[in-house]
Amino acid sequence: MAKKLATEAYKGTRDFYPKDMAIQRYIFDTWAKTAESFGFERYDASILEPSDLYKSKGAENEEMVNEQTYTFIDRGDREVTLRPEMTPTVARMIAARRRDLNFPVRWYSIPNLFRYERPQRGRLREHWQLNCDMFGIDDIAADVEIISLAYNVLKEFGAEDEDFEIRINSRAWLTEKLKSYDLDENQMKHMIQLIDKKDKIKDFEKESEIITGQKIDFEITEAPKERSIKSIIDALNLIGITNIKFSPTIVRGFNYYTGTVFEIFDTNPKNNRSLIGGGRYDNLTELFGGDAVTGIGFGMGDVTMRDFLETHKLLPKDLHVTAPRLSILPMGKDLNIACEKIAHTFRTTGVTVSVDLSDKKIGKKISSADDAGVQYVLVVGEDELSSQNFTLKELATKEETAGQLDDLIKHLA
Amino acid sequence: MAKKLATEAYKGTRDFYPKDMAIQRYIFDTWAKTAESFGFERYDASILEPSDLYKSKGAENEEMVNEQTYTFIDRGDREVTLRPEMTPTVARMIAARRRDLNFPVRWYSIPNLFRYERPQRGRLREHWQLNCDMFGIDDIAADVEIISLAYNVLKEFGAEDEDFEIRINSRAWLTEKLKSYDLDENQMKHMIQLIDKKDKIKDFEKESEIITGQKIDFEITEAPKERSIKSIIDALNLIGITNIKFSPTIVRGFNYYTGTVFEIFDTNPKNNRSLIGGGRYDNLTELFGGDAVTGIGFGMGDVTMRDFLETHKLLPKDLHVTAPRLSILPMGKDLNIACEKIAHTFRTTGVTVSVDLSDKKIGKKISSADDAGVQYVLVVGEDELSSQNFTLKELATKEETAGQLDDLIKHLA
Repeated sequence: MAKKLATEAYKGTRDFYPKDMAIQRYIFDTWAKTAESFGFERYDASILEPSDLYKSKGAENEEMVNEQTYTFIDRGDREVTLRPEMTPTVARMIAARRRDLNFPVRWYSIPNLFRYERPQRGRLREHWQLNCDMFGIDDIAADVEIISLAYNVLKEFGAEDEDFEIRINSRAWLTEKLKSYDLDENQMKHMIQLIDKKDKIKDFEKESEIITGQKIDFEITEAPKERSIKSIIDALNLIGITNIKFSPTIVRGFNYYTGTVFEIFDTNPKNNRSLIGGGRYDNLTELFGGDAVTGIGFGMGDVTMRDFLETHKLLPKDLHVTAPRLSILPMGKDLNIACEKIAHTFRTTGVTVSVDLSDKKIGKKISSADDAGVQYVLVVGEDELSSQNFTLKELATKEETAGQLDDLIKHLA
Repeated sequence: MAKKLATEAYKGTRDFYPKDMAIQRYIFDTWAKTAESFGFERYDASILEPSDLYKSKGAENEEMVNEQTYTFIDRGDREVTLRPEMTPTVARMIAARRRDLNFPVRWYSIPNLFRYERPQRGRLREHWQLNCDMFGIDDIAADVEIISLAYNVLKEFGAEDEDFEIRINSRAWLTEKLKSYDLDENQMKHMIQLIDKKDKIKDFEKESEIITGQKIDFEITEAPKERSIKSIIDALNLIGITNIKFSPTIVRGFNYYTGTVFEIFDTNPKNNRSLIGGGRYDNLTELFGGDAVTGIGFGMGDVTMRDFLETHKLLPKDLHVTAPRLSILPMGKDLNIACEKIAHTFRTTGVTVSVDLSDKKIGKKISSADDAGVQYVLVVGEDELSSQNFTLKELATKEETAGQLDDLIKHLA
């Protein structure tokens, strides 16, 4: 006898049994619906990308590329990476067709992404993400719209303004500020990474001195001086979005950001984490040659989204697996085929139907259909088949309707 | 200046631009709708699986595991495989919860699958597949229902009976027949693989003699003698499915099949290929320990499905990207934010809205909205903003409606 195989999923990934899948689909459908309400069009690509896509200067995030990607050599000696994020892919696709596309381009996708990290609350090795991006517009109206879309996704799930907070910063402003210390490119990059982790670091001042060799006076409570950030906040206030504030330590991990960066945080202390992050990246498509196309976008993950919905009790209670409307219950195994034929007849009229092919007794079959959320049952025995007279039972009301199949089909229509 | 990055997708995979994505979604939605009409529930899992899942005896397909999988060692020294098929995954999930599940279990999924092979028509390195499986029922009614579901998927796309043909065989019958030649397990396995490739082999008799050391009288025109296959065909005929025939060379590549095996072929000579394949696998869950749960299912791929729909001209002509219902067109860049505010107001009433943030002239903006399939436009200039009196234009009819925003919202409701 061979060794038994394990039934667990690969570490850091999830099996979606129907109940979890129903929640996943609810999240995806709400994402898609909101993005489409803003005129965003859906796209997709493969999870496999040439590794070069993540190694270029612009897209670089050293920790991620060196330690956290799934990268391997394929059988044809190509280096391949399972996409850890979607932005390089969408920039690649935009660059490939930038002469044919009608800008502004508004695109969204719901890709699964992969990172090799220690699984923990809110972070798994595979997760799905809503990605929304707008290309070709450098006006702040694009920044306003992207943040407004992110805000609307949370509202569509039923969240209140006080459930979350938008924190916004400007990479351009931050870079200007750091430049005043005469930092070289490398010091600059490391300082930005340090600011990104500021909350997790014991002695920020000491660490920043190690990087730069000088004292950096980084006053985090500094007021928003940069013009465009103030304009974006004002415009969002005008639209009615007021749970937004300037936050100088928001930098986002990726080095391709050039302007506005923002994150949306859950305000509940039990789940105090970032739900959505994004920003403006004006030079990313340059990596593929030709003129750059400006871009701005955000991503939000399914794992943190589900945590948010559960923390705030926002998951609909009636969210269940799609049950068929009618279940046909044969009185015995020898009637199974005849019941499959009846099911076929109902289905041609648009009714969703299952047949209980189990060996259970008829009482058990009825309660089993009830548990599954089926609306009607049709018990089929020898008598019903010979007389062609059937009785349809509505489980909730216990109301019975007798007649030939045609009559019952009309009753369900 | 760094080397330019390539804009091509990884070899053998596809980028789904919005137009292709619309076709992909149409195919997925039709799959999901038909599976749910039979009471099948949706599940999913990660594309990453421990490689052991594909190495066990039952699941083994030597060519596939040894030469065609994407397998690599992760950073924690685990051997991981990108799933090449879904059946081992679903068997793993069923085995893990077999004590809690209410059988019969009817599940479907639309996973993406990976195989390292030379890309060619109908075969790519990544493709999506509808997988439908029923567990816990060994009665032939399950076989009948599974084949009927596969048939109904094609009918739901608008195919006629003469567009495709169902070919059915029995692994049990085939094994019985081969056993009469006293073959050992290894010879048996190789003979089944040989029969699977029969059409591609020049001299089948000679090759089979090399494997078995004897003459194998494998008469492929042999009539269906096996009892259950005849019963399944009879039952399908009773339901009204008549484009089915016994075909003794259908074996399916996977060694886990134990009973009924079937494929559905396109009958059009231009696209004469297998669209759907499946069968019964009664011992697969045994690999995980405990009692076996009987299973039967099938898979159909998106690449061959799209080829089929295009060959038979079955793709709907009006299949297009979801355009917003209304587009708001600012007369100048300085009105962009005001237009975002108006868009926000319309969206709160359920209207899908985009704002044209481009630098185009107003005439271009209108024709651009028309090209995209937008139904209404609202041109916004200084006059409209100061008077709060707007004009909504329906593009198809050129009908104009003037009024305040509330009036126009009512008009669209």
